Amino acid sequence: MTSEPVPESPATSEGGERKGQRTRRRILDAARGVFANLGYERATIRGIAAAAGVDKSSVIQYFGTKQNLFREAVHWTIPVADAIGDTPEQTAENLARGMLAAWAADPNSPMAVLLRASMTSEDAAEILRNHITSSATPTLATAIDAPDARLRAALLGAMLMGVASQRYLLQMPDVADVDIDKLVRLITPALQALISPAE
Amino acid sequence: MTSEPVPESPATSEGGERKGQRTRRRILDAARGVFANLGYERATIRGIAAAAGVDKSSVIQYFGTKQNLFREAVHWTIPVADAIGDTPEQTAENLARGMLAAWAADPNSPMAVLLRASMTSEDAAEILRNHITSSATPTLATAIDAPDARLRAALLGAMLMGVASQRYLLQMPDVADVDIDKLVRLITPALQALISPAE
Repeated sequence: MTSEPVPESPATSEGGERKGQRTRRRILDAARGVFANLGYERATIRGIAAAAGVDKSSVIQYFGTKQNLFREAVHWTIPVADAIGDTPEQTAENLARGMLAAWAADPNSPMAVLLRASMTSEDAAEILRNHITSSATPTLATAIDAPDARLRAALLGAMLMGVASQRYLLQMPDVADVDIDKLVRLITPALQALISPAE
Repeated sequence: MTSEPVPESPATSEGGERKGQRTRRRILDAARGVFANLGYERATIRGIAAAAGVDKSSVIQYFGTKQNLFREAVHWTIPVADAIGDTPEQTAENLARGMLAAWAADPNSPMAVLLRASMTSEDAAEILRNHITSSATPTLATAIDAPDARLRAALLGAMLMGVASQRYLLQMPDVADVDIDKLVRLITPALQALISPAE
């Protein structure tokens, strides 16, 4: 798959620009739903256009290729820097609550769609790896005062992703049946032990 | 998809039975590879037969339907009871080491194939949920002396699955780059905090 440049919004006037932004958002929302349900490989531009109620040519005009559309649909910023608190316990709690709340707010959040697609698509997995490795892990590592800070940060992310994906993607009983406050209460000491070891 | 009965092994003599067992194993190994690469939905009996070097009719003779073949290919027993140690720390360490070692030994282990397939197939997710919920979680819960023992057991499983899938399925840097001993050393106190809370 070649990577074509994404064309500028085709709108020319200010009103047209707003309409263009709305269409763009509509396509991105539809794309997340289709990628979530079918995975990266099975999703098609045609199917996404149909889900968004626009022509296939519009999708190509706005996003070029399926790969580009996917990259934009799953783009998200992990607010790790905002989660760093005054104590390791506070940081652990903020991260747990932030991740679970983000998934709860939108089952087709960019993070959820990307994780699901990563299980069957190497392209998607590469985007996820880059994002975690270059942004979330190093930011969190700066807040960890222990040997292997970077590895501890990465493991915290892995553990949280395990809990979130069992709750929201796999809808595992037990993990899916309790409220977020209770989950956060049980998880926080575990994450704290990871980023602030006793010895 | 209707669930047809799996026919008995077509072998009649003792030597034929051994040959039948070998063919069966060969088909199951090939099936795990194909399900791992393509996911449940895109895998076909024809493709699995080709990967195993047998006729499509043999696969149908031994396993009936794709659904039955999948169920047998991903069947695994979590040795949770064996992992329960004298202390919560020992139990946590045994579970971490056992899970990581199982994935390391076989990237297409039944557990890994089932988890990957579960992300895009509701049939696969249902098998995984049943297995965890009816076997692994209650067994581990019996070893936890704290309120919410069952939920704590389920969360330990979710966290370990997060670490194993980031290491082996997603090959996330940091988590994939260290040896199992180091991972176990960092993870154990976190799991211990979950199953043996301080307060």
